[in-house]
Amino acid sequence: MKPKFAVLMTDFGLQDPFVGVMRGVILSRAPNAKIMNLTHQIPPQDIYTAAFYLMVSVSYFPRGSLFMVVVDPGVGSERDILWARSKWYQFLAPDNGVLSWVEEGSPKERFEEVRVVRNDKLFLHPVSSTFHGRDIFSPAAGALLKGMSPKTLGPVRTDYKKVPFPKPKKVLNRVSGSVIGVDRFGNVITNLMDKDVTPTTVFYLKGKVVAGLKPAYAFVKKGEALAFVGSFRFVELSVRNGSFAEMFGVKTGDPIEATLSLDAS
Amino acid sequence: MKPKFAVLMTDFGLQDPFVGVMRGVILSRAPNAKIMNLTHQIPPQDIYTAAFYLMVSVSYFPRGSLFMVVVDPGVGSERDILWARSKWYQFLAPDNGVLSWVEEGSPKERFEEVRVVRNDKLFLHPVSSTFHGRDIFSPAAGALLKGMSPKTLGPVRTDYKKVPFPKPKKVLNRVSGSVIGVDRFGNVITNLMDKDVTPTTVFYLKGKVVAGLKPAYAFVKKGEALAFVGSFRFVELSVRNGSFAEMFGVKTGDPIEATLSLDAS
Amino acid sequence: MKPKFAVLMTDFGLQDPFVGVMRGVILSRAPNAKIMNLTHQIPPQDIYTAAFYLMVSVSYFPRGSLFMVVVDPGVGSERDILWARSKWYQFLAPDNGVLSWVEEGSPKERFEEVRVVRNDKLFLHPVSSTFHGRDIFSPAAGALLKGMSPKTLGPVRTDYKKVPFPKPKKVLNRVSGSVIGVDRFGNVITNLMDKDVTPTTVFYLKGKVVAGLKPAYAFVKKGEALAFVGSFRFVELSVRNGSFAEMFGVKTGDPIEATLSLDAS
Repeated sequence: MKPKFAVLMTDFGLQDPFVGVMRGVILSRAPNAKIMNLTHQIPPQDIYTAAFYLMVSVSYFPRGSLFMVVVDPGVGSERDILWARSKWYQFLAPDNGVLSWVEEGSPKERFEEVRVVRNDKLFLHPVSSTFHGRDIFSPAAGALLKGMSPKTLGPVRTDYKKVPFPKPKKVLNRVSGSVIGVDRFGNVITNLMDKDVTPTTVFYLKGKVVAGLKPAYAFVKKGEALAFVGSFRFVELSVRNGSFAEMFGVKTGDPIEATLSLDAS
Repeated sequence: MKPKFAVLMTDFGLQDPFVGVMRGVILSRAPNAKIMNLTHQIPPQDIYTAAFYLMVSVSYFPRGSLFMVVVDPGVGSERDILWARSKWYQFLAPDNGVLSWVEEGSPKERFEEVRVVRNDKLFLHPVSSTFHGRDIFSPAAGALLKGMSPKTLGPVRTDYKKVPFPKPKKVLNRVSGSVIGVDRFGNVITNLMDKDVTPTTVFYLKGKVVAGLKPAYAFVKKGEALAFVGSFRFVELSVRNGSFAEMFGVKTGDPIEATLSLDAS
Repeated sequence: MKPKFAVLMTDFGLQDPFVGVMRGVILSRAPNAKIMNLTHQIPPQDIYTAAFYLMVSVSYFPRGSLFMVVVDPGVGSERDILWARSKWYQFLAPDNGVLSWVEEGSPKERFEEVRVVRNDKLFLHPVSSTFHGRDIFSPAAGALLKGMSPKTLGPVRTDYKKVPFPKPKKVLNRVSGSVIGVDRFGNVITNLMDKDVTPTTVFYLKGKVVAGLKPAYAFVKKGEALAFVGSFRFVELSVRNGSFAEMFGVKTGDPIEATLSLDAS
């Protein structure tokens, strides 16, 4: 039950010393802790991107990892901080829905126990109103990594906030979805999964039409657009050696339409 | 006395292999060293931001940490490199004042011993004129982390460079301060501390007036400006879910005026 | 032969969870592995910058390091993935020439054994067509770090791709070279080495003339341009406290001319 690794995800960026200070606090409590970064460049206060990246990443980490998700627009308000445990992983996050999609994503990730982090004997005092990552999340994580029972964190909680995953809608041979993320290469990640489409599906996004799924970048010429099932198993739109998002002005939340050819369905 | 952790702060950024190479050199000498990053995105050659971030961060790290501060506009000139030891921490930094504020900040951080790093048997040769982080700081740190006595670094030094912290000036009920930093969220950090102001203080910065201190972001509406005591205990000006710095064109060094209401003082 | 450290270099950036996920996969297989970053901000698909940074960095890492180079424009096509071993280091990289310059750079780095990574029992399935860093490189690295024999990866390969280092051309007292990189400070790194020039050489780059080599930044005034032998032993052009690349519009690949004064040659 004692976690073996801490995995950090925040919207703090790497410019300021926030992330470094969190590591310092964790290691002050648990000097042998092993700490990894998932990413610290979640767009500021964007719990949807955080929820998505967590959902598609968790299963690649060692069992026994403790994920610390500090994307927290409500910091300093009355929102609670949660600790949750699934079959193989543990989580610390604000009660703002950021853990919803990981729990929805797979039966193995259903939470078996959720608690409120309320035991202020664990916290750094004075607790600031803006940096709970340092004053609450990190000392709580340090205590868990050192072997403290999760029961010490606070009482069980069953009515935490859930934000449903935006599933695509299907009407006849038409699927309506949306852009769920844009990566560093300008690849556009949609909420359409491999099971929602066929190899001959035609995609419409921001006036651009892309016909059919390709197996890999190398199947189109440089500068040409393609659709493919990305490494997260979601459909992505991309330009080989270019940025689809930049060329067609795409951003998170934009609607995408897909038409399944009748013969293939 | 042997440090347990190395904590790196530089202005090297993460684009080039400089920081990676420093870790390589440290671990070549001390294969079991544990190395953390404070930040590598100090604005190029900005010893004031480095001094500030160090001052507000040090106490959150485990005792026995060795801070390596490579923000070094004078690299390759005659400036010395210093090793310093406070009650709980050690430091390696150029003799350019970058350690001044951490030493000023707290009695526990007063330096009990300062030495010049001069023993070139420790260095990587040929010593380059531009990358002492690799050729001097890292091998010296590696040797210390491996258990070498600091005496081997070089002789004691007492007349190192000090840069005083820019304290705000108070005349009657008016406090004149300055912007000391802007973080990734566009929050403006001033040199006014909690003790310099009252809950009803009115702030004037770049034509914008902000009245009173709020306990947290959640106490104003989205898009609204507020002043609050930040996690470093300095007054910060912020826009909820926005960037104060961007909206009002604020940058480090800008003057801020504060008026303490007479009834509250 | 079992590697002691993994050193990651990719063009994935730090915005998305790709690098975090790679660490997760490596540590899932080899929970005690020590992992370092060289850099993750190679310009997208730029195998030349990757090859250069690898060449100038490798020797600073502990012997027994395993370098994982995932800069891979051909991912998902028929290109192979290679494992290579020099006297002191190991490498995993696509067969696209990215390892060429490290092998050219020093006799110690000549590869003594090269194999194709082909044993798909090691991979994560289903293997995606776009993220071999996660599905092939990381599990293969994890297995090696755990002690698996490299023979298990796949058969020996002798005809892998080589991209020659762009050596400068010398005609009489004139040397024609090119810009091989631009660092975060705007320093321009050329392919001219210390041995190609003399202290009085005059450099011509994008209409700017810089005469003579200086020992360090401090030998010119702030805002003034200089040429010097950089920390990688290549000639760099720089502006003290400024960005040469920005001031003169320089980018990788731009030609540079150098005239060796006759008296000095």
